[in-house]
Amino acid sequence: MTNIALIGAGNLGWHLGKSLHVAGARISQIFSRNLGKTSELATALNAVTTDDLRKISPDADLYLIAVHDSAIEEVADRLPVEIRRKKLIAHTSGATPMQVFSEKNIRRYGVFYPLQTFSRQRETDMRQVPFCLDANNEADFLLLKNLALTLSPKVHRLDDRQRAQLHVAAVFANNFSNHLFAIAQELLQKENMPFDLLLPLIRETVAKLEDGDPDEMQTGPARRKDTATIARHLQLLENQAEVRAIYEILTKHLINGKW
Amino acid sequence: MTNIALIGAGNLGWHLGKSLHVAGARISQIFSRNLGKTSELATALNAVTTDDLRKISPDADLYLIAVHDSAIEEVADRLPVEIRRKKLIAHTSGATPMQVFSEKNIRRYGVFYPLQTFSRQRETDMRQVPFCLDANNEADFLLLKNLALTLSPKVHRLDDRQRAQLHVAAVFANNFSNHLFAIAQELLQKENMPFDLLLPLIRETVAKLEDGDPDEMQTGPARRKDTATIARHLQLLENQAEVRAIYEILTKHLINGKW
Repeated sequence: MTNIALIGAGNLGWHLGKSLHVAGARISQIFSRNLGKTSELATALNAVTTDDLRKISPDADLYLIAVHDSAIEEVADRLPVEIRRKKLIAHTSGATPMQVFSEKNIRRYGVFYPLQTFSRQRETDMRQVPFCLDANNEADFLLLKNLALTLSPKVHRLDDRQRAQLHVAAVFANNFSNHLFAIAQELLQKENMPFDLLLPLIRETVAKLEDGDPDEMQTGPARRKDTATIARHLQLLENQAEVRAIYEILTKHLINGKW
Repeated sequence: MTNIALIGAGNLGWHLGKSLHVAGARISQIFSRNLGKTSELATALNAVTTDDLRKISPDADLYLIAVHDSAIEEVADRLPVEIRRKKLIAHTSGATPMQVFSEKNIRRYGVFYPLQTFSRQRETDMRQVPFCLDANNEADFLLLKNLALTLSPKVHRLDDRQRAQLHVAAVFANNFSNHLFAIAQELLQKENMPFDLLLPLIRETVAKLEDGDPDEMQTGPARRKDTATIARHLQLLENQAEVRAIYEILTKHLINGKW
């Protein structure tokens, strides 16, 4: 049974902690700056808690850092020396290179990055989540791999460069597409229409990705080079300079084809 | 039983014709410029076919125009005078105002617009499709409404202005989001990663829309104003000026918040 110290109990820490516990790992200790918010998770996992990094026990097999990207370096730097010298420390970030650990003179380090968007209110089916792993030695990679396999069959070894590229791709596929949905909602509200109208279309757009590449599935006035419809759309957006600029750049990129 | 002449047998005509037939309407005649491609549909629907608009029979209750937006006016203009004077003519386009009919001295006209993306290879569950209807008189609106209700419970009356706004919103929600998926795929391919990696994330992005508005659900470095991650992403995209420009405009719009 892998003994894990979970460092950070936000959305990601909460989901990972619960899932690893259910899958048979032991979450022995949880670090959080907000112990009040952590008590429910700690009780469910039968874990002790601390808000002091210096009090993290050196007995765990894995120190899993699930804090905001901007805090990873500082947290790694403040872990007790015994842990930094002897224990496996992994972060859960898509955007952060492993070098943050080597630069801090940590000996054994890795990445345990679940490629998914997590929110406290929603259950996440971990078996559908791709786990993107890496480590600076084979034994530790195997430990992370076997741990990930208890959660999901989708386990990939990606190096820093691949993981960084995957992270920027995920920003396009998730953050930016969601923002386009928000723009669409705003456009509908201006004419007193509910966003629900678009949900079947959005669902089908995503369902089609099962059948082929998104570029093959592309439809719409830009792909058809339907300049009359594009001109009408730009006229409708004439009082919304920013939304119009987004329409123009995406239409231009679509018309120009492969880049 | 509504007697329908179907004008146009592309993706949309094919799906609408089949669904209306199954739902109990009679598709008596199909116009298509390509009779070879239409024979299978005509046989399935027990309909006669023609490639000559002048030969369309005046016996139908509804003339349903499912041709490309750019051809609607011309088709309406060439229909036999008897039909143009006495019969209900409706198009199926989100982007086309009803005036195309009044300008052509057609007396009874309407819109029968299914808000969905159709492709020949995929079955479409019509019960999930919102039908956006309009007509220039109440009796004809009722005919279209009752016909749409045989296909889907989601029936809306939208005027030209609303339908045009809905169409541009749909371009953001469907065409542009799909293009972002294509950009994400291209980014992954550059580092030898399969697009499948992103599918669970994309599915969850859409599933979250059931729980709340997209703007409330927004995550990512731009929403967090995480300038360090944004800077790293822009550096990764430094050799792809167009993709980088799309990243920048969407990030800026997200950071500036409500518009």
